[in-house]
Amino acid sequence: MSIVEIEYQVTGMTCGHCEMSVREEVEQVPGVTAIDVSATTGRLVVTADQPLDDAAVVAAVDEAGYQAVRVP
Amino acid sequence: MSIVEIEYQVTGMTCGHCEMSVREEVEQVPGVTAIDVSATTGRLVVTADQPLDDAAVVAAVDEAGYQAVRVP
Repeated sequence: MSIVEIEYQVTGMTCGHCEMSVREEVEQVPGVTAIDVSATTGRLVVTADQPLDDAAVVAAVDEAGYQAVRVP
Repeated sequence: MSIVEIEYQVTGMTCGHCEMSVREEVEQVPGVTAIDVSATTGRLVVTADQPLDDAAVVAAVDEAGYQAVRVP
């Protein structure tokens, strides 16, 4: 089983409630096993146990009301 | 029936989620019939149909995670 870890930069989060909104949406993406998100830095790190659908993560963050850009 | 309207200044709110947290707590204070709250201005206006327990409003805001000071 391979572990995937992908980093995103998220704009628009201001507080812990925002982090929670992002977390709740991103954890629904198939394969996601861990989420690290910070409103302070805007950093979102998604860990998965299968190849991660990048567009699904971006869409999940959008659903929460924020914009995510994958960090190369 | 007399209508009471009391204004508070709330510090710490940053976004709509914060407003919602304050709203959810303050609406549980007996007599409260309307709540106007803005994270942008920090202004909280509570309307009630009976004398309002000031300490209960401040405690409700505190419960939500913020500080309220009654505006004289």
